[in-house]
Amino acid sequence: MSKDDHDPAGEARVAGGGLLDRRIFLGALGGAAGALVWQRPVWADTGNPAGPPETPPWMLGPGKPFSNYGQPSPYENKVIRWITVNSAVPGNGISWCPLHDLEGTITPNGLHYERHHDGVPAIDPKQHRLLVHGMVGKPLIFAVENLLRYPMESRTVFIECGGNSNAGWNPEPIQSRVGYFHGLVSCSEWTGVPLATLLREAGIESGARWLLAEGADASAFSISIPVAKAMEDGILALYQNGERIRPENGYPMRLVLPGFEGTTHVKWLRRLKAVASPVMTRDETSKYTDLLKNGKARQFALVIEPKSLITAPSPGMKLPAPGLYQITGLAWSGQAKVAKVDVSADGGKTWGAAALQEPVLPNCFTRFRMPWAWGGKEAVLQSRITDEAGNVQPTRAALIAARSPNDYFHYNAIVSWSVSRDGTIAHVYA
Amino acid sequence: MSKDDHDPAGEARVAGGGLLDRRIFLGALGGAAGALVWQRPVWADTGNPAGPPETPPWMLGPGKPFSNYGQPSPYENKVIRWITVNSAVPGNGISWCPLHDLEGTITPNGLHYERHHDGVPAIDPKQHRLLVHGMVGKPLIFAVENLLRYPMESRTVFIECGGNSNAGWNPEPIQSRVGYFHGLVSCSEWTGVPLATLLREAGIESGARWLLAEGADASAFSISIPVAKAMEDGILALYQNGERIRPENGYPMRLVLPGFEGTTHVKWLRRLKAVASPVMTRDETSKYTDLLKNGKARQFALVIEPKSLITAPSPGMKLPAPGLYQITGLAWSGQAKVAKVDVSADGGKTWGAAALQEPVLPNCFTRFRMPWAWGGKEAVLQSRITDEAGNVQPTRAALIAARSPNDYFHYNAIVSWSVSRDGTIAHVYA
Repeated sequence: MSKDDHDPAGEARVAGGGLLDRRIFLGALGGAAGALVWQRPVWADTGNPAGPPETPPWMLGPGKPFSNYGQPSPYENKVIRWITVNSAVPGNGISWCPLHDLEGTITPNGLHYERHHDGVPAIDPKQHRLLVHGMVGKPLIFAVENLLRYPMESRTVFIECGGNSNAGWNPEPIQSRVGYFHGLVSCSEWTGVPLATLLREAGIESGARWLLAEGADASAFSISIPVAKAMEDGILALYQNGERIRPENGYPMRLVLPGFEGTTHVKWLRRLKAVASPVMTRDETSKYTDLLKNGKARQFALVIEPKSLITAPSPGMKLPAPGLYQITGLAWSGQAKVAKVDVSADGGKTWGAAALQEPVLPNCFTRFRMPWAWGGKEAVLQSRITDEAGNVQPTRAALIAARSPNDYFHYNAIVSWSVSRDGTIAHVYA
Repeated sequence: MSKDDHDPAGEARVAGGGLLDRRIFLGALGGAAGALVWQRPVWADTGNPAGPPETPPWMLGPGKPFSNYGQPSPYENKVIRWITVNSAVPGNGISWCPLHDLEGTITPNGLHYERHHDGVPAIDPKQHRLLVHGMVGKPLIFAVENLLRYPMESRTVFIECGGNSNAGWNPEPIQSRVGYFHGLVSCSEWTGVPLATLLREAGIESGARWLLAEGADASAFSISIPVAKAMEDGILALYQNGERIRPENGYPMRLVLPGFEGTTHVKWLRRLKAVASPVMTRDETSKYTDLLKNGKARQFALVIEPKSLITAPSPGMKLPAPGLYQITGLAWSGQAKVAKVDVSADGGKTWGAAALQEPVLPNCFTRFRMPWAWGGKEAVLQSRITDEAGNVQPTRAALIAARSPNDYFHYNAIVSWSVSRDGTIAHVYA
């Protein structure tokens, strides 16, 4: 690498293209890198304000009153879920979590992604019932008030739709803000009753290996889930990030199966039927399955495979000038805890280890951060998760080779952002 | 203890009054306790619904549409911050977090407690500036866009007002829902720029031991904070639970000093002035200090002392019948991580160890849970935290003896709920 290469912080370098040692975040930069100024990608359509301090108008008189329930600043009204619906059936669609506008690991309740099949039912909790039946010794019917009696547990976990990122299967890379094609994933602290408690009380039979879970929306959304998973760590969640679950997230109750794909986290749960075999619903046969090259379909790929992506810089943002940047993003895996996240600035030729925000929890978003001295040349940014079971996020080519270009679900390949000389960021296949 | 004592689960007993082994949460109850049915305190003004399942009206047609930003269910519209203001200066007051209605450890952004001195300023982030000056080599002025450039970190921490729970100093126990006299405390994932990064860039001088922090509200709320704390783990927070901080929590930026009392987490931060000594503002002299028996005042008691309380059952709730209950609550300490929480059902005569929800993080809420077989007799419920530094939550008598009955701040004594034979819960001094 020559002296005039785009790498002005040589002694801290850990990989090509200007990637630096993550320990820089712990203290001052020494040597050449010490002269660098922290930069941040800006949205291409916004300026970078500057000017002298002054007594602002909001200090000249009393402020706004207290509120019973707070709302975001009106200046943040562009931070929204992006809605994509079926025009013939407007209740069937998705809304995308704006991952590009968020930081940390918790998704605020108002921005958790949505996937509905026939809209959001307006459920009266006093009338809602949950039936536990099938291969059980004693069928049970619960009102919400009954369920609130039971001992609860909390789990901070991501939920990801099996169809998230499916634009990745397109032959050409989609150009969109990152949350608006990878944002069918969110992370919350869910609290509720362990399913094991309820299934034991119902006396589930040893031959019952699956549960049919049914929601109380107009589509009666239904899916089969393994009893072993429900017994291991599944919960019937009643609370999200401290408060009762919101309507679009399943009020008054939903399933949470840590690490499993979104379809299994059935919202508005009204029925669990213990059965011997999967019931082969629409959304585990014609949908949420992977068409392979041999023409067969992979079914019940329920555990989310390791995945990561860079949320900043990302498409729609621009690097205003050469300088020092914090690359940041999210990593998650349903197979095992995040062990490490590597970042590349040269399209995967060389990699450096990113800093992981503590605590790193199982089945949870992990925020990673990587210092990067951008010299103003072209670059291709990538991130790659390795989990504690040794699973590594595949390249796009490897994923397609393992499945098929005709697959539509469970896309978890490495994501690539190109950086042009003028600082523009674009989505590329690299 | 006689056979007909209020303890129907003898073999699992860990303390008097029916407290059971927390490992009961991990599996089925054996022996006599196995016949017990889980119960839950209900609000005294609500019934416990029951009835057969039916096809509910919300399954008969399409549901409500997707939303750009979600809101709680209208059925939860009583879950609110309770507002208490100074009638002469309505912008000076508090709103209480409804701890009694929440679960888990994260406080949703809309319900984080408020303490304002002159209302909530409506800040335009493009016009807001932060000045870092005083004993520094190079004074700095930051626009919000500048600060967003810097590398960030996240910390999940509680913030507690130094005046929280001050009804505890009253000679008679206040009767109110627990959040409405202990709810000036909340817990969020905050993300922002380490103060160390900014202070190092400004070249803070070695003689600068304190920072005057000033907010951009109409009261220009001001407080002195130790430089050592700011350098250790303080952050200039821009995000709360993933999204940008809301107006009432300091939009566009606030200080977060993990484990320190709420006054130091200055909202709407506009100025940090490095100084040699505290500047003796109103809120560190006449307020937020503790009047001792010798007539002197304890000042700069900035680190939150260990504290816990039971959120359910709690005043306003009622135990509908004898049976098995999960006692649950919150524990926190700014001095060290929570090591254990003990629970008593006999007013502190005997104690059993509660289960702690993982992960137990420093400067964060820890949720505890304890199984309890209530036999229908009178009981007094208490919780007591011990932190990893060996600090133990004091009894009310010990706290008053150590300070003075005329103190008004920093109340962290053990909280007692009485349970009457009809299941009514009341606040008592025991």
